[in-house]
Amino acid sequence: MLCCLFILLGVFQTLLGVRGAVTPKPIILNGTYINPELGKYHARLRSIAQSCLEIKEKHGATQDGIYILTTESGSYYQTFCDMTTAGGGWTLVASVHENNINGKCSVGDRWSSQQGNDQSLPEGDGSWANTATFGTAEGSTSDDYKNAGYYAISALDVSVWHVPNNELLHNWSSSAVLRYHTESKFLQEHGGNLYHLFKRYPVRFGAGECLSNMGPNSPVVYDTGDKDSTKNFYAPSVRHAFESGFITFRVFNSDKGAMAMCSGVKPVECNPHHFCVGGGGFFPQREQCGDFTSLDLDKTFRGSTQSSVLIFYR
Amino acid sequence: MLCCLFILLGVFQTLLGVRGAVTPKPIILNGTYINPELGKYHARLRSIAQSCLEIKEKHGATQDGIYILTTESGSYYQTFCDMTTAGGGWTLVASVHENNINGKCSVGDRWSSQQGNDQSLPEGDGSWANTATFGTAEGSTSDDYKNAGYYAISALDVSVWHVPNNELLHNWSSSAVLRYHTESKFLQEHGGNLYHLFKRYPVRFGAGECLSNMGPNSPVVYDTGDKDSTKNFYAPSVRHAFESGFITFRVFNSDKGAMAMCSGVKPVECNPHHFCVGGGGFFPQREQCGDFTSLDLDKTFRGSTQSSVLIFYR
Amino acid sequence: MLCCLFILLGVFQTLLGVRGAVTPKPIILNGTYINPELGKYHARLRSIAQSCLEIKEKHGATQDGIYILTTESGSYYQTFCDMTTAGGGWTLVASVHENNINGKCSVGDRWSSQQGNDQSLPEGDGSWANTATFGTAEGSTSDDYKNAGYYAISALDVSVWHVPNNELLHNWSSSAVLRYHTESKFLQEHGGNLYHLFKRYPVRFGAGECLSNMGPNSPVVYDTGDKDSTKNFYAPSVRHAFESGFITFRVFNSDKGAMAMCSGVKPVECNPHHFCVGGGGFFPQREQCGDFTSLDLDKTFRGSTQSSVLIFYR
Repeated sequence: MLCCLFILLGVFQTLLGVRGAVTPKPIILNGTYINPELGKYHARLRSIAQSCLEIKEKHGATQDGIYILTTESGSYYQTFCDMTTAGGGWTLVASVHENNINGKCSVGDRWSSQQGNDQSLPEGDGSWANTATFGTAEGSTSDDYKNAGYYAISALDVSVWHVPNNELLHNWSSSAVLRYHTESKFLQEHGGNLYHLFKRYPVRFGAGECLSNMGPNSPVVYDTGDKDSTKNFYAPSVRHAFESGFITFRVFNSDKGAMAMCSGVKPVECNPHHFCVGGGGFFPQREQCGDFTSLDLDKTFRGSTQSSVLIFYR
Repeated sequence: MLCCLFILLGVFQTLLGVRGAVTPKPIILNGTYINPELGKYHARLRSIAQSCLEIKEKHGATQDGIYILTTESGSYYQTFCDMTTAGGGWTLVASVHENNINGKCSVGDRWSSQQGNDQSLPEGDGSWANTATFGTAEGSTSDDYKNAGYYAISALDVSVWHVPNNELLHNWSSSAVLRYHTESKFLQEHGGNLYHLFKRYPVRFGAGECLSNMGPNSPVVYDTGDKDSTKNFYAPSVRHAFESGFITFRVFNSDKGAMAMCSGVKPVECNPHHFCVGGGGFFPQREQCGDFTSLDLDKTFRGSTQSSVLIFYR
Repeated sequence: MLCCLFILLGVFQTLLGVRGAVTPKPIILNGTYINPELGKYHARLRSIAQSCLEIKEKHGATQDGIYILTTESGSYYQTFCDMTTAGGGWTLVASVHENNINGKCSVGDRWSSQQGNDQSLPEGDGSWANTATFGTAEGSTSDDYKNAGYYAISALDVSVWHVPNNELLHNWSSSAVLRYHTESKFLQEHGGNLYHLFKRYPVRFGAGECLSNMGPNSPVVYDTGDKDSTKNFYAPSVRHAFESGFITFRVFNSDKGAMAMCSGVKPVECNPHHFCVGGGGFFPQREQCGDFTSLDLDKTFRGSTQSSVLIFYR
C-alpha cells in the first residue's frame, strides 16, 4: 500500500499542474480546486459542444450564461446560452444593434452596409450570407454581434429578444421588451440556419418585388409580450402595415430595397423599412439604408429603435 | 505493487491526453511536459482570475506579461499584466490610439466617434460607458483596445502609460514616455471602474460647462517622468492651461464639447481639447472631434500625438 | 490491490473534472472521453506551438485544419494550418479581401486605408508593419484577416492561395484558383516575416520610385495553376506589364503610389496597381486607393477581383 501511495503522490504532484514553466504543480487539494475560477473554467470545458442545445441535452447544463462552443472545423468561441425559455438550449448567434439611426449605411452598420448607400453594392456588407464574424456576446447590446454559430450550427428554430441598448448581460432576460420564438422547425427546409437561408433568399437590392418575393416566415410563440405589445413596439402610423405574431425573412419594399428580418411581424404592405431590420447596400430612398432602415419614422416615438435585436438558434 | 504500476500506467496512458480524436495520450513524461508550450499554457490557466491583482495576490505571479482573465459571467479573455510597478497587480483594460490625427471622428476613432462630427450623436460611439470591446492587448499600441475588464473589474486606482505607437509589447515599459498611477483609491467613490464612472459623468456634448462641471480627478504618483516632463509632453502654447500631476475625467471646453480623460493633468482653462483625449460625437469646432481631439495644435511639435495611452486598473 | 483501486477511484473521481463549480467530476470513462468534443479540444491543446510547422514537426500533426497557436509573449489564437502542401507546416497569417472594389480606401480596406485617399496619411492604416490584428481564420474569405502570427512567427517562406470570396473553409483547397509557394527562404534575409520585411520596405506613398525601388521578390513553385494561369488571372490589357512565377513585395507605380504585394508576378512596367494588392493611404489617382487597388481595370473581366488572397508562412 505504501508503494501505491508513494506512486499516487507522484502522479498527484507531477501530472496535474505546473511548477515554473514546465514542471507540474497540483491544481486540486482535498478534492476541490485550489483556484475556484479554474474549476469553473474546467466545468465549462467539460460541456464544450457545437450548440447550447447539445450542452443542455448531452451535458445537462440548466443555467443561463456564457458557455464555450466549437465549430465542426474546430474554431472555439464563447456565447450566451438561454437554458430556460421553453425548454432551453438556445444559442445566441447574432445581434443587430443600431449605433446611429441617422447614419445611413455608415460605420457600424454591419448588417446592411458600411459603404454608404451605393447602387454598385446591392448586397452591402453581405454579413447575412457570409462567414465574417464580429463583436462579443457580452457586448451584443452595445455593438453588432455575429459568431461562428451563425453559419456553423444546424438548427430548427429561431428565438428573438429585443433588449434595451447597453443593458448588461445579467439583466437581459428581465429587461427585454419582447421575447418570442418559433416552434415550426421552419429552418430545416432552408438549410438549417440563417446563413443557408439567406444564401437562398439573398438580401440584395433589386432581387425581387414587394410581397410577391417575400422569403420564409413562421408564426411565433411569445415569452415576453404578445401580439399587441409587438404592434405597439413600432411607430403608430405603420401598425396597419404588418400582422403581428410572425417572424419574416428577406422582404422587399416598393422600391425593391431588400431587408433581412421582420421581427415579430409579417408585412402586408410595401413599406417594411419602417419595421424590418438589416438590409442590402442600396435603397433608392437613401434614408432607408442602415441596420435599422427607417424604424425612426416617428422621431418622437422611442420604441423599437432603442433596443438591440438578439437572435438565437435551437 | 505490480497491480499499482499496471493500473497507474493505465491512468497515465488513458487519462492525461488524447490519441486520435478521443483516446487519451500522455502529456507529461518524467515529471515534465512533453510539450513545454502546453506547460506554459497550463501555468497561465492555473492563475486564471478576474484581475491581474488577484493573479498576483492569490496565485503569486510576479512576471509582467499576458495572462488569462475571466469576467464574473464567464467570458474569458487575455490581457497584459504589469506585475512590477508600485507593487504590481495592474490590469491593462484599454488603449486610446490615434490612427489619423487629421481624421475628425473618422474610422478608428472608437473612443470618440466614427460617424463624423455630428450634433445628433452627442455621445458618439459611447465606448466609455458601454460593453462593446475591440482590439487586442498585443496590438494596443497600433489600434484602439478595450477588453471586458474595462466594465467588469472592480478596482480602486488607475495607471497610465504613454507608449510610442507601434512599439512591441516587450519594449512597452522601457520605451514609455510617461508612466504614472493614482493611489487615492478614487474609483471606489465612482462605481469601481471607468465604465461606471462615465455612466455617472457622461462624455456627451452639451451635458455641462467648462470647469464648473468637471468630473473626478486624482493626483498621480510618477513611475516614469515627472510633473515637468508631463508639461513638456503637450504643445508649448497650452502649458499654462493645465496643472501637471493629476488625472482628470470628463471635462468640457468653452463650446460644451465633452472629453473623457486628461492624462497627467487637470485643466485650469477652457481649452482642454489640446491636452485631453477621447470625447463625445460633436464639437462645434469640427477639428476637435476625434480620439486625440486637437492635440496637434502645434503641427511641428511631436509630443503626445505620437504615443498610445494605455489604461490599467488595480 | 483494493487499496490501489480505492485510491485510484478517488484520483479518477476527484482530479479529472468538476462537479458543480469547484468539485471535480470524471471526464474519461473506460479510456475514452465522455465528451468527444473535449477530447478533440485536448488533442489540439497537446500540439499547441508557435507555428504550424512546429505542430507538424514536433507533434506529428498531418491533417489540414484549425489549430491553437501561441506567441512567445503568451497570446493564444487559432488559425488554419495547411499540413499537406509541399511537406506541410504552413500557417495562415493573413488574408486580403476586397469588400468593395468601388470603395476607394473605404471601410474594410484594412490592408491599405479606411480613411479615404489622403495625402497626409501616406502609410494609410499601416497594417503591413504594425501589430493590429483583425478578422478570424474561418472568415478570411469574407473579410480581411490578420493574426498575431503575422508579426510573431519567425519563418523562411511564404505560400499564397487565391480562394473565391465567401468560400467555406473545407472547400478552400479544392476551390482555390491559384496556389503557390516560395522555396528560396527569402524571408531570412528580411527579418523572418512580412512584419519585419515591411518595416524595412515601408508601404508608403512617395518612399521610392517605380522599378528602381522595388522590394524583395522570390520565384514561386506552383501547387495549383502555373505561370500561364497566373497571367490569365489578371486583366488582358496588363498581361505584358508583369512576369509570372514570382511574388514581389513593396512596389511603386509611376505616381509613387506604394503597393504591398504582387501575387504570382513581378512588375516590369510602372502600372502595378492593376495586379498588386494592399497599399499606402494615398495615390495621386484616387481610383487606385484600396485593398485591391485598380485590379478592376477591365470591368467585364471577373478574374482576380473575385478571390481573397490568403497568406501563409513556413
